Amino acid sequence: MSDTEDRLLARVALTWLAEPGTRSVHRLVDQLGPVAALDLLLDGGAPDSALRSAVAARTTAGDARAVAEQALRRTERLGARMVTPEDGEWPARVADLRALHLSGTGRRVDLETAPPLCFWVRGAWPLDEALARSVAVVGARAATPYGTHVATELGYGLADRDWTVVSGGAFGIDSAAHRGALTAGGLTVAVLACGLDRPYPMGNAALFDRIAESGLLLSEWMPGAEPLRPRFLIRNRVIAAATVGTVLVEASARSGATQTLNRAIGVGRPAMVVPGPVTSAMSVGAHEVLREQPNARLVTGTAHVLEEVGRIGHDLAPPARAPERPRDRLDDEAAQVLEALPRRKAIGLERVAARAGVDLRTAMRKLSMLEELAMVVRRDDGYALAPPPERGTGGGRAPTGVGPGPSAAPRG
Amino acid sequence: MSDTEDRLLARVALTWLAEPGTRSVHRLVDQLGPVAALDLLLDGGAPDSALRSAVAARTTAGDARAVAEQALRRTERLGARMVTPEDGEWPARVADLRALHLSGTGRRVDLETAPPLCFWVRGAWPLDEALARSVAVVGARAATPYGTHVATELGYGLADRDWTVVSGGAFGIDSAAHRGALTAGGLTVAVLACGLDRPYPMGNAALFDRIAESGLLLSEWMPGAEPLRPRFLIRNRVIAAATVGTVLVEASARSGATQTLNRAIGVGRPAMVVPGPVTSAMSVGAHEVLREQPNARLVTGTAHVLEEVGRIGHDLAPPARAPERPRDRLDDEAAQVLEALPRRKAIGLERVAARAGVDLRTAMRKLSMLEELAMVVRRDDGYALAPPPERGTGGGRAPTGVGPGPSAAPRG
Repeated sequence: MSDTEDRLLARVALTWLAEPGTRSVHRLVDQLGPVAALDLLLDGGAPDSALRSAVAARTTAGDARAVAEQALRRTERLGARMVTPEDGEWPARVADLRALHLSGTGRRVDLETAPPLCFWVRGAWPLDEALARSVAVVGARAATPYGTHVATELGYGLADRDWTVVSGGAFGIDSAAHRGALTAGGLTVAVLACGLDRPYPMGNAALFDRIAESGLLLSEWMPGAEPLRPRFLIRNRVIAAATVGTVLVEASARSGATQTLNRAIGVGRPAMVVPGPVTSAMSVGAHEVLREQPNARLVTGTAHVLEEVGRIGHDLAPPARAPERPRDRLDDEAAQVLEALPRRKAIGLERVAARAGVDLRTAMRKLSMLEELAMVVRRDDGYALAPPPERGTGGGRAPTGVGPGPSAAPRG
Repeated sequence: MSDTEDRLLARVALTWLAEPGTRSVHRLVDQLGPVAALDLLLDGGAPDSALRSAVAARTTAGDARAVAEQALRRTERLGARMVTPEDGEWPARVADLRALHLSGTGRRVDLETAPPLCFWVRGAWPLDEALARSVAVVGARAATPYGTHVATELGYGLADRDWTVVSGGAFGIDSAAHRGALTAGGLTVAVLACGLDRPYPMGNAALFDRIAESGLLLSEWMPGAEPLRPRFLIRNRVIAAATVGTVLVEASARSGATQTLNRAIGVGRPAMVVPGPVTSAMSVGAHEVLREQPNARLVTGTAHVLEEVGRIGHDLAPPARAPERPRDRLDDEAAQVLEALPRRKAIGLERVAARAGVDLRTAMRKLSMLEELAMVVRRDDGYALAPPPERGTGGGRAPTGVGPGPSAAPRG
């Protein structure tokens, strides 16, 4: 086993020994590296008694390294991959969680807000690219038709402007935001509070499949991990920190979604809130935040959100697209066909031909060629641009050989 | 004609020569007193050319003093009265308009925001008492059912907590707020942008009559004055300055109601805004203010409004009530009957008897006695507590003898 593989295995084992976000674990990894940190914990050397007893409880139940090995095999079977801070696609922004200190409750989930040790990822897009221009849209599960409408419009509007829509995959506002982005043919990322093999809620299974196909499913928990209640709040810090800003659409009083917004404020991100009728219980939490958080900004739609995140986002390059150089070597008709494909989402052969201004035969021929060049992928719903290629820089992805799964498109 | 009468006449003439709020006129009155200020203007001595030509145009049309005399006669016939800064019931708070400087447009109505020279008043309550604990509720004429509901609830809730509800008597939000206050048996004041004999809009005539009966109609314009368009904005500064705070409920983009809120902010009053669905055109102005005015506070109901105005209002005594000493001399049954009457609004004889725990005959006898003592008034809709007595302090009201009109109750 290589050093890289050792380190990955140790990170996975650490997420099993203590919940993601545990500060003392993150500090140990910072100081000693993941392998030595794991050794120390397994030797009973945890720096505080809470962590010591958590580790003891776990190690009674199983062998941490064996659990981690099994998790990695399961990850591979799932067609998922691991991403760690050593990888080129690690989303740098989550490091801001080091500085997150939430005032108030003293609850574990508000104290243990360290950056993630690693991510499980399903989907073809490089994680850092997908999150570079991203906005979180979060809110109530028991959304009203009003909230659902607003979240769908926001999801659509942001995706249409090439912003990735990040949410938690829950019913209500989360689902509406994801769906809006998908409808726009845009990129959406669901950050889960459980293993990627058992996305919660089950009722959203079809939605999760669609998200994995064109966007990303993301989790800090190994396959098989259950969506335990505190994990949703632990997860929320990632939604807040991995994105450029967070929008809250509908929340009842003191809901989990307002906690996501508090975390966004805590890491200095634009925190935006959509107001609603004062007669609606589902807007009480939103209005509370607007009254109590001087840093929360009222927004009424996509334009306002772009105004807020644009201040930060305008310096960010839009996600890199398929390689430019091969394109220069294409013949005119092939170039026209490539141009005819929308930036995201797939379209049928007839539509490609019509948009490219070529006959069907030519379109089919050129699409086959482009598919050979890995510039186009063929999907059930038509032809699409291939996701951008892996970057060649060091520390490559999926060091255990856990590569892109069946849902991933061929790389250029 | 006494000096007091001269000064009143001069003030009335001045409101005719130049629109209320004209800073140069207010300054002259400050420096010279109203009589000398009027003389100076009529002699062509206006300090600036704009005012000089305004005065010239007016004096071509008529004799200012004669117009004023006629206005005062008409005021008396109307059952209205004049209130000037010399009167005990002058609402001191409007003096803050001296310091109002609105940024931005350079429009006349935003520059000429001096305090009023005098008020026309219809209704029995002393003006200062009615306004001491008062909140303005303003908003769109083309209100939605949502806005109408919220404004009615606010009007009711504030009146129920003994706050006077001030608004502009327009259709939509204004009417809803007035009606809510009336329903609660509370005090409401309509500040008009025209003469009290022609309250605008005509469709609210019945509402204006109800307001005059239990609350007050107020104007800076003499009887007969038309509701010219700029007068609504001139009037709005009084709504903002005469009250402890202003609540905006529904406003389309850049509406007049948002201007009232800007004036409230300009004189340092709590400026409150009720949000609404972002899908409603009638909430666009409200959300704009919340986004652009750091001093505007989101409120969702009466409790939030009281929280804001309470900071200022808690030091204010609640409006003084009917004399306490005579009450001490009442027999037990009469005291019970008096106690049975609600603080505002009238109730029928049967209800008085039931609440007082006495038989109908006794109730009727005691009510007659209390009416004799001017502690109770009999109205079309039943029996009510008499308005509080005039204060005995000097400079008394209605110096021209223009006393309370037919709608006013006897004074104790």
